[in-house]
Amino acid sequence: MISRADIAAAAGRIERYVRRTPLLRVAGAEFGLPFQVCLKLELLQHSGSFKPRGAFNRLLSAELPTSGVIAASGGNHGAAVAYAARALGVPAEIFVPTLTPAAKVARIASYNARVVQTGDTYAEALLASRARQAETGALEVHAYDHADVLSGQGTVARELEHDAPELTHVLVAVGGGGLIGGMTAWYAGAAQVISIEPESCPTLHDALRAGRPVDAPVGGIAADSLGARQVGGQMFEIAQHFVTRALLVPDAAIVAAQRVLWEHCRVIAEPGGSTALAGLLSGAFVPPEGAHVGVLVCGGNTDPAKVAQ
Amino acid sequence: MISRADIAAAAGRIERYVRRTPLLRVAGAEFGLPFQVCLKLELLQHSGSFKPRGAFNRLLSAELPTSGVIAASGGNHGAAVAYAARALGVPAEIFVPTLTPAAKVARIASYNARVVQTGDTYAEALLASRARQAETGALEVHAYDHADVLSGQGTVARELEHDAPELTHVLVAVGGGGLIGGMTAWYAGAAQVISIEPESCPTLHDALRAGRPVDAPVGGIAADSLGARQVGGQMFEIAQHFVTRALLVPDAAIVAAQRVLWEHCRVIAEPGGSTALAGLLSGAFVPPEGAHVGVLVCGGNTDPAKVAQ
Repeated sequence: MISRADIAAAAGRIERYVRRTPLLRVAGAEFGLPFQVCLKLELLQHSGSFKPRGAFNRLLSAELPTSGVIAASGGNHGAAVAYAARALGVPAEIFVPTLTPAAKVARIASYNARVVQTGDTYAEALLASRARQAETGALEVHAYDHADVLSGQGTVARELEHDAPELTHVLVAVGGGGLIGGMTAWYAGAAQVISIEPESCPTLHDALRAGRPVDAPVGGIAADSLGARQVGGQMFEIAQHFVTRALLVPDAAIVAAQRVLWEHCRVIAEPGGSTALAGLLSGAFVPPEGAHVGVLVCGGNTDPAKVAQ
Repeated sequence: MISRADIAAAAGRIERYVRRTPLLRVAGAEFGLPFQVCLKLELLQHSGSFKPRGAFNRLLSAELPTSGVIAASGGNHGAAVAYAARALGVPAEIFVPTLTPAAKVARIASYNARVVQTGDTYAEALLASRARQAETGALEVHAYDHADVLSGQGTVARELEHDAPELTHVLVAVGGGGLIGGMTAWYAGAAQVISIEPESCPTLHDALRAGRPVDAPVGGIAADSLGARQVGGQMFEIAQHFVTRALLVPDAAIVAAQRVLWEHCRVIAEPGGSTALAGLLSGAFVPPEGAHVGVLVCGGNTDPAKVAQ
């Protein structure tokens, strides 16, 4: 299991390459809630999501072959790997499924990566990327199930704890679980980390119930960012220790949270990026009296016209 | 002329009602510049612009008649006055010109204000609002030419100086001049405040050249937020002392800055809100070696579909 020391080391390694993203403290009344909410605006990170943290930590910790790097992704991880590969001067090949929205494909291509769109879901794109990796010998950068990726994502929690030490509860959206795995490893119980997932992509919810990572449905509005078929084995071990609650929200609550973020905060979040807030606004999670609540707004790679209707 | 003490008093007065907006430090390479840029994301303020600072300070400093408050505005000030009036429980009437975009009219109405759309420009809406004020006796909340409004806007600089004390140059867009007037009064030369205006709305540029506020053209893409016909008399006195440079940018540079903010930062700024950054990206302002540059991103009330094309 990764440690706080691993995450601190990752933070030092990636510091030059990633942004320290800001907080926005929103009065509860704005959101119809009786308590302040602390938003970590991680969607302002390079490439529009938290993913460069893990991607840079993985690339900077490995020997990079001349064939470069290869990754499968719903889109955000691919964009981050492409961004990191360009920054470090190596080629990147990114495999994405057909459900990846055009905005994400364009973003990956804009960083000069080769994009291959194949398979219906992330899991199928991953299989295709592995067949290709066997040919090229490129470094595989897994989207979540790798210690260096987890440690990189954990640096979000390190910043958040520093900037908002009062937080008692932190809400995080989950797909493959890299973000919540890294963050939970950092907090290690010092704050409760709550998992929020769409009802249509309940990977961690189902895994915790089954006692092991199991196949979950992949569907709904956030499938491109949260539609890993299973959580990773490495994150699951951490989650079993420290994730106290894995809650689900309907797609309608995610759309409502996107609208609230735009209307009240002028923030454009993608569906996966507003899922954690949806957990709070929908009442799926009701914090105890006196809680200090933080919410990760983890991605903004979407067509803004769809958010601000 | 307003003082730092006036601004500090304003900050105490409005603290409960406004957001402390975050900074985003962007590596120069992202913007094709050889130095870091510190963005103050004031567009994340309530109602989508910096304007609630001045509006709250004005309302909280006055005796509020039962007829409430009245204001003329290109849109953002009106939204802020409506927001503040609702928060303080008084009615608001807002006069806006026909060039005010639908997004801003809708925003004002969403705060339960009565909106009157009349006249081609802000200056004409202001005349209409004054005729109406003479009937109702409501408190006029001028968009920029009032000491309480200037002191309120100056609180942005107080936050910025606290959070980024290293800044040597701060770029600010100018319409009627309330924001730059308040900010310059705070810095009082401690950092150089640079005025950036669209070529098609050069109010401060023309005033400084003439030695007094003079009528300037009102046109182009940012006219709804920066299209005051003249700068205010009170801000002009401050600007004469402290605004060292008043630079102009073409509309195309403003559009380019909007795109950069979306592509590289996932920030949706309105044209007026990206005008200050346009001054930097277009090369209109080239900071001296060793400078530390801050940029106010002051408004986000626009249709995001127009930004992310």
